[in-house]
Amino acid sequence: MSQSCVVGVVMGSRSDWPTMEAAAAVLDRFGVPHEARVISAHRTPERMNRYAADAAGRGLRAIIAGAGGAAHLPGMLAAQTAVPVLGVPVQSRALQGLDSLLSIAQMPGGVPVATFAIGEAGAKNAGLFAVALLATTDAELAEKLAAFRREQAEAVGDDPRG
Amino acid sequence: MSQSCVVGVVMGSRSDWPTMEAAAAVLDRFGVPHEARVISAHRTPERMNRYAADAAGRGLRAIIAGAGGAAHLPGMLAAQTAVPVLGVPVQSRALQGLDSLLSIAQMPGGVPVATFAIGEAGAKNAGLFAVALLATTDAELAEKLAAFRREQAEAVGDDPRG
Amino acid sequence: MSQSCVVGVVMGSRSDWPTMEAAAAVLDRFGVPHEARVISAHRTPERMNRYAADAAGRGLRAIIAGAGGAAHLPGMLAAQTAVPVLGVPVQSRALQGLDSLLSIAQMPGGVPVATFAIGEAGAKNAGLFAVALLATTDAELAEKLAAFRREQAEAVGDDPRG
Amino acid sequence: MSQSCVVGVVMGSRSDWPTMEAAAAVLDRFGVPHEARVISAHRTPERMNRYAADAAGRGLRAIIAGAGGAAHLPGMLAAQTAVPVLGVPVQSRALQGLDSLLSIAQMPGGVPVATFAIGEAGAKNAGLFAVALLATTDAELAEKLAAFRREQAEAVGDDPRG
Amino acid sequence: MSQSCVVGVVMGSRSDWPTMEAAAAVLDRFGVPHEARVISAHRTPERMNRYAADAAGRGLRAIIAGAGGAAHLPGMLAAQTAVPVLGVPVQSRALQGLDSLLSIAQMPGGVPVATFAIGEAGAKNAGLFAVALLATTDAELAEKLAAFRREQAEAVGDDPRG
Amino acid sequence: MSQSCVVGVVMGSRSDWPTMEAAAAVLDRFGVPHEARVISAHRTPERMNRYAADAAGRGLRAIIAGAGGAAHLPGMLAAQTAVPVLGVPVQSRALQGLDSLLSIAQMPGGVPVATFAIGEAGAKNAGLFAVALLATTDAELAEKLAAFRREQAEAVGDDPRG
Amino acid sequence: MSQSCVVGVVMGSRSDWPTMEAAAAVLDRFGVPHEARVISAHRTPERMNRYAADAAGRGLRAIIAGAGGAAHLPGMLAAQTAVPVLGVPVQSRALQGLDSLLSIAQMPGGVPVATFAIGEAGAKNAGLFAVALLATTDAELAEKLAAFRREQAEAVGDDPRG
Amino acid sequence: MSQSCVVGVVMGSRSDWPTMEAAAAVLDRFGVPHEARVISAHRTPERMNRYAADAAGRGLRAIIAGAGGAAHLPGMLAAQTAVPVLGVPVQSRALQGLDSLLSIAQMPGGVPVATFAIGEAGAKNAGLFAVALLATTDAELAEKLAAFRREQAEAVGDDPRG
Repeated sequence: MSQSCVVGVVMGSRSDWPTMEAAAAVLDRFGVPHEARVISAHRTPERMNRYAADAAGRGLRAIIAGAGGAAHLPGMLAAQTAVPVLGVPVQSRALQGLDSLLSIAQMPGGVPVATFAIGEAGAKNAGLFAVALLATTDAELAEKLAAFRREQAEAVGDDPRG
Repeated sequence: MSQSCVVGVVMGSRSDWPTMEAAAAVLDRFGVPHEARVISAHRTPERMNRYAADAAGRGLRAIIAGAGGAAHLPGMLAAQTAVPVLGVPVQSRALQGLDSLLSIAQMPGGVPVATFAIGEAGAKNAGLFAVALLATTDAELAEKLAAFRREQAEAVGDDPRG
Repeated sequence: MSQSCVVGVVMGSRSDWPTMEAAAAVLDRFGVPHEARVISAHRTPERMNRYAADAAGRGLRAIIAGAGGAAHLPGMLAAQTAVPVLGVPVQSRALQGLDSLLSIAQMPGGVPVATFAIGEAGAKNAGLFAVALLATTDAELAEKLAAFRREQAEAVGDDPRG
Repeated sequence: MSQSCVVGVVMGSRSDWPTMEAAAAVLDRFGVPHEARVISAHRTPERMNRYAADAAGRGLRAIIAGAGGAAHLPGMLAAQTAVPVLGVPVQSRALQGLDSLLSIAQMPGGVPVATFAIGEAGAKNAGLFAVALLATTDAELAEKLAAFRREQAEAVGDDPRG
Repeated sequence: MSQSCVVGVVMGSRSDWPTMEAAAAVLDRFGVPHEARVISAHRTPERMNRYAADAAGRGLRAIIAGAGGAAHLPGMLAAQTAVPVLGVPVQSRALQGLDSLLSIAQMPGGVPVATFAIGEAGAKNAGLFAVALLATTDAELAEKLAAFRREQAEAVGDDPRG
Repeated sequence: MSQSCVVGVVMGSRSDWPTMEAAAAVLDRFGVPHEARVISAHRTPERMNRYAADAAGRGLRAIIAGAGGAAHLPGMLAAQTAVPVLGVPVQSRALQGLDSLLSIAQMPGGVPVATFAIGEAGAKNAGLFAVALLATTDAELAEKLAAFRREQAEAVGDDPRG
Repeated sequence: MSQSCVVGVVMGSRSDWPTMEAAAAVLDRFGVPHEARVISAHRTPERMNRYAADAAGRGLRAIIAGAGGAAHLPGMLAAQTAVPVLGVPVQSRALQGLDSLLSIAQMPGGVPVATFAIGEAGAKNAGLFAVALLATTDAELAEKLAAFRREQAEAVGDDPRG
Repeated sequence: MSQSCVVGVVMGSRSDWPTMEAAAAVLDRFGVPHEARVISAHRTPERMNRYAADAAGRGLRAIIAGAGGAAHLPGMLAAQTAVPVLGVPVQSRALQGLDSLLSIAQMPGGVPVATFAIGEAGAKNAGLFAVALLATTDAELAEKLAAFRREQAEAVGDDPRG
């Protein structure tokens, strides 16, 4: 884990990686130094508490946290650090992520978690939001983001049959 | 807080008390020593972590934990103590406790939380379940519980108009 | 069926076994004597009523009951025995266990059922909860449970790509 | 309780009466002898089992059973009698009857419960369905039912402002 | 279509047959004369209106009607005949039958539809309910039904691994 | 009821009028001749069938139909006329219009109903959609609609505290 | 894109085409000139704004717009044109179109979107509704539509096993 | 509207202000210059498009956008600016904010909106998240935020009855 990481991508289980790598891929593309770690709120609470306690001091500017079902990881990190936490509801087996979404989004007033869509789209968007957050004080990154948005628009072909 | 407490009744906010006092009332009725405390997973995570860490050593045999919305308190206590945790989903304002229920019940394999019904019925039942749990090794309490069940049955009047 | 069983694992249908064997596997691992039986609340109500009536006398300390859809087995056992009942909502075909969850969790005040997550995670956790319940008065089992929790934490690899 | 009752109107709690009296009112209107009783599946399981066991012998031709939340009464009666059971999901506090509806309607194959709408409309319709069921072999009742339907149609005013 | 049919099994589309044949199979088993027809409330409303109008005169004692999505067939038949209508919510593609269930069960007061579970279990149970309904005035059929129930109970093996 | 009506506003019950008058108010404002009638799919099916059969011949260009719960009126009108049907889900008591919405929107392929939002907003929008539909071939009405949209935009004050 | 198009079929992503081609197929069958285009509300907002601004002037009489998830395309087109907008909720991955349906149907009063069923059935029906809308002032098209309806009814075979 | 605003608090309707003022109150407390404006995605799309286009140039570092029902405002702002958008689902009348939540959270990959809880808690948290976002590059604000968190923890009384 590099000391210069500015974004942490964490998730409750190794099985969340196929979803969460979409966040890492965005950060890679924009050259944002980041780390990816498995941290289970329920199975490794001490690891989680330590991660939250150290986040600001290690220079993290945002934490992207994905979890499924009774998804407590994003909220419990947010409870223990002032670093902005971006929550990604991983699609669960029985309820398909509705439980994950409500467990992350419905935080009580006082401790915010920025929540994104269920699954891969949410992971990608958490990555983009982290970039946008950093770009508010980084002109070069802002320019890269603007270029990404232009290219994204141009990549939308006109003809659905094409 | 008495050292001889065997059940802890905790909740995320003072506003949960009108729900959770149904659990305390049951414990009172059965003469089970207990304590009632506000512990917010999100606003007072250290208090929560300490409560979980001390629970077994202080002699708690069960923890009844109520919370609403993104209700992380029961699951995060369960992650940090081997004392059985009984979770009560408090009825939330917008989604009426469906979010609370899913946030508490849908725990991943490895860290159990025993979940009860949304609201006051669930709080009462968590209290009764704690009594039943203690009664499995306490013959006097078992007899009291059997008597309660008989009285409860007898109290059900036959005539709905009566 | 051994007379020395302390936990009963019951389910509404043979088709629930792939889910419920996760509970039995936990009990096996911890050396907790148990039995596994099919008891349908709807198709074999007498068998269910007898099972509930005999549970305490046979020395059962907990009953783990799994069922799907209009899942009445856990609640009806709980109505007829003081032995703690742990309910597991089996994932149903059309509504994927939401019906099972609500049918088990939403018990009225007076008759508690401890509910766990939908599906295999819930079955595993019901098994672990039964162990924790027994461990409150069994120091050796408590030590085994603590060891399980430590191993479980250590088994969570740090690297999601690892 | 008259021996000549042909329909039983039962409910899990006295608090269900404001809903269930709509069923009784229909039976009154059609002159169908009936009884109204509180029978709790969870608090008075023996009373329920006895009611089911005696139903056919006492001459009941239909049982209308209302319950809320984890509503097990209709299904458990149906499991223990061949008399047709008509289930009425009573509107619950937190989830407004969605839990009641699923707990009653989602019965497994083999033991049918005829389910009606949540709340008073469902209770009224269960009453009407019982009348229709009896009317299939009672020409006088069939004529009354036909008259009721005609009057019901005529009572629908044309002008919404009228 | 035989004149002596006492139960009609109708459905909104040929694609509902794999679900609805479970109802027909039950009627076959009990020797209840029945017919199976496709009647679409939306595509063939005249056929539906005629079917409802003729049902009583043709001697039908019950109509089992299955439909999916915005499932209007059971309710619209019930609106136009006094013959008891048993509704089966067919599992829909997007919402998996929740839409079908609500469209059938939530009838307004005045026009009852007896609703069963989503999918095949509901179709089987509608068939059994029709048998039970006929059995209230047919001692031979009642005996067959009692035998079926006994066999059904006996067929529930004790051992889930067996 | 004027013969020159071009839009029919119909609803399943007089109790739907507080919702549906929002549709009538829009038509009044735009000077579109219309009628308002109570037509119950379930209690007055013949009235409904006749209304649908006569709609095109009477010169109706659109039918706005509101209903709640198992809301069959819009779909059954659409099944029996080629006049465009605009469905308004009326907010129901227990499920707050989710049942109404699904019963109206989830029509099978072949018979369209244009569905709008639950409650008063949906009724207003059904009225505006009817105007827009007529305006596609009525330049004067199109101009009025454009003016309405401009005024509507201008009426949105900038300051939320104002 | 032909200047003489009277209906536009637009969608948020190329991946929506398998759903939306059911709308185009209907328009083909009825000989209604139309175009099919990918317009993303989120990735190509300018393209969307321009499409809405030009729609009336280019002679479009209706726009069929399909989108999934947080489906903003139909509503944002409707906000910027007086041409009637028909919204099709595309089935989404996690929540299977419930999010799409609510995002399209629950428009506030003032800006209507006519919403159809989730998925292919909705796309087909949006096409048919566009035809019906045009047919209100095109006698030849009205006759074709009437013929389609007759054929559709005749194509419904009577025997589900046939 | 001050030129030095760094956060915009916008909402779809004046009726959203009782919810959204919780966001403004947080910004007031932390001394973050902000503005509050009504911008309707549907009724004033041009105002919205202009607001998004000017946001970065005017120096906004975050936009907090609240809306209810088919809540398109946050997503459409995010589609047209690189300034981070924080979405607040306002509690809607019929579906109590579930529609608002899904309309905001379920954005497709490529255009992120950071979503918070339904209602006032979400508005407060969006305000706190904006503060945290600014605090990542403003040491004084970071210290204020840390102090707020400490005070918030201390304000949680221990005794629920206190």
